[in-house]
Amino acid sequence: MDVLIIGAAGMLGRKLAQALAPGSLGGVPISRLRLADVVVPPRPAGFGGAVTLAAVDLAQPGAAARLLAERPGVIFHLAAVVSGEAEVDFAKGYAVNLDGTRALFEAIRRQNQACGYRPRLVFASSIAVFGAPFPEVINDDYFTTPATSYGTQKAIVELLLADYSRRGLLDGIALRLPTLCVRPGAPNRAASGFFSNILREPLVGLPAVLPVGDTVRHWFASPRAAVGFLQHAAVLDTADLGQRRSLTMPGLSASVAEEIEALRRVAGQRAVDLIRVEPDPAIARIVAGWPENFDPARARALGFVADASFDDIIAIHIADDLAGRIGPARA
Amino acid sequence: MDVLIIGAAGMLGRKLAQALAPGSLGGVPISRLRLADVVVPPRPAGFGGAVTLAAVDLAQPGAAARLLAERPGVIFHLAAVVSGEAEVDFAKGYAVNLDGTRALFEAIRRQNQACGYRPRLVFASSIAVFGAPFPEVINDDYFTTPATSYGTQKAIVELLLADYSRRGLLDGIALRLPTLCVRPGAPNRAASGFFSNILREPLVGLPAVLPVGDTVRHWFASPRAAVGFLQHAAVLDTADLGQRRSLTMPGLSASVAEEIEALRRVAGQRAVDLIRVEPDPAIARIVAGWPENFDPARARALGFVADASFDDIIAIHIADDLAGRIGPARA
Repeated sequence: MDVLIIGAAGMLGRKLAQALAPGSLGGVPISRLRLADVVVPPRPAGFGGAVTLAAVDLAQPGAAARLLAERPGVIFHLAAVVSGEAEVDFAKGYAVNLDGTRALFEAIRRQNQACGYRPRLVFASSIAVFGAPFPEVINDDYFTTPATSYGTQKAIVELLLADYSRRGLLDGIALRLPTLCVRPGAPNRAASGFFSNILREPLVGLPAVLPVGDTVRHWFASPRAAVGFLQHAAVLDTADLGQRRSLTMPGLSASVAEEIEALRRVAGQRAVDLIRVEPDPAIARIVAGWPENFDPARARALGFVADASFDDIIAIHIADDLAGRIGPARA
Repeated sequence: MDVLIIGAAGMLGRKLAQALAPGSLGGVPISRLRLADVVVPPRPAGFGGAVTLAAVDLAQPGAAARLLAERPGVIFHLAAVVSGEAEVDFAKGYAVNLDGTRALFEAIRRQNQACGYRPRLVFASSIAVFGAPFPEVINDDYFTTPATSYGTQKAIVELLLADYSRRGLLDGIALRLPTLCVRPGAPNRAASGFFSNILREPLVGLPAVLPVGDTVRHWFASPRAAVGFLQHAAVLDTADLGQRRSLTMPGLSASVAEEIEALRRVAGQRAVDLIRVEPDPAIARIVAGWPENFDPARARALGFVADASFDDIIAIHIADDLAGRIGPARA
């Protein structure tokens, strides 16, 4: 099997490529990994097959066609201008998140018409397709009313993916990923950053700022769970999806207080004491428009499995991103 | 007020232009009517202001900018490749229904950025944004899972319209129109044609074919009601919509049997006897995927009013399209 990951230099793309390095997907051997992003993606360690690394901007004419020249059987499309940037730069968000993806779909359609090519395409969508006000629990048939341009672009691609799939041009599945936590790396200024910051920083002995009240509730999955969703989506029987190709992924509904309690259990009061409360009304307003809880019954029935607790989410971060160690980094 | 109708040569566009001919919209005088379509639209009778007629293909570069050169305050966008054609010609459907509309939105955005232009834009969407299976009654927060490329294109434009509106680039409202009935003109081979054919043809003494069982139920509005929706949408206070700019329009949920009973009351058994039952499994299959009933609570609360009965729908056809006369056409 020939696997293409678009967005392979991002946090999730790198973890996915590494998860595929043992060399199989759903029991089928992977002969070649094609990794693409706007910058050259890193080479995963330990993969025995062929690896192709490409710096590609999908929004450029011809770029998608070149990526598909050898007709990869599975395509993971994770590349996107992120939420904050798509909101600041209207044209860039549409050019990359909508037009770039449509260019990919059209390149597939041309190969489909030329030779019957019909890859499995796993698209990383987002719970940003939903917008407030919400019911207490969001069901699988709740409407998509995105509150951002990013969410709009994701919702549009979901519709395109369903139509291209219905016509047999590709075999698509869109996964609405929860907010990923704990996100490794440096703190960023994304409005959602604090959900990870208040765990990641104290776990290595650094201070973190909490800009909202601890009753704020949101919907989470670990990066490892998200990688699991993507792998499962690559091999499940899409006949079970019918025409409804978008799935809200399972996750964990947790409040900030529950996050902090889990941190206390894992790393003690000393870690919790590193969280400084600094209310930020602007961030509080943004976060108030985010969903708190879902009932992703379809995805659960199809075998997608989320993290069981925030303790597990923290443990996964320690295992996958901290090499098993917590406490202040040693010099 | 300067009013632009795109799709002004179509059935609904012509009726809308004629309804505006008295010269006002929501009490505001109309100084100019700009009528555009892929063919030159007809000039409405009796309008006292200036009329501009234009043959324009929105999908052509520069076409949208030319239509907006004098910044019409209200734009009705009704133009579309219809359902059947968008299904047969994938590329044309997307080029006109998606790219043409996006070109219009982008031309508005450029004028917005240049000079603050922000027109009211009324978009004719469709209940084709919904796809089976359905609950018994479809509520306003039910998800859009279109079963056709046409429905996909309408749902995508709804998302774009909401995002452009949220950003203050235009002041949009999308109306999901019911199936229009009685549709004037010659019988066509659209799968939905029979809903109108079995009334329109017998009313003038001609035979009609009914290809499905009489328990088939669907969601209807008269063309006159639809014109009323469009006019109301052009002047309502969009602050009442919040971010949710798409509205399922009120309609009448009626079975084929109820249509036929109304025909009997209006035109007698002789008219009903002109309906010949000729089951067509292909059409029955298509129609089985169509919605039967809605609860359009938001639109009703916002003052949109549908037809009260099928007797009214037939009476409107007789008044508006048959000059008040039923029975065989005289030589």
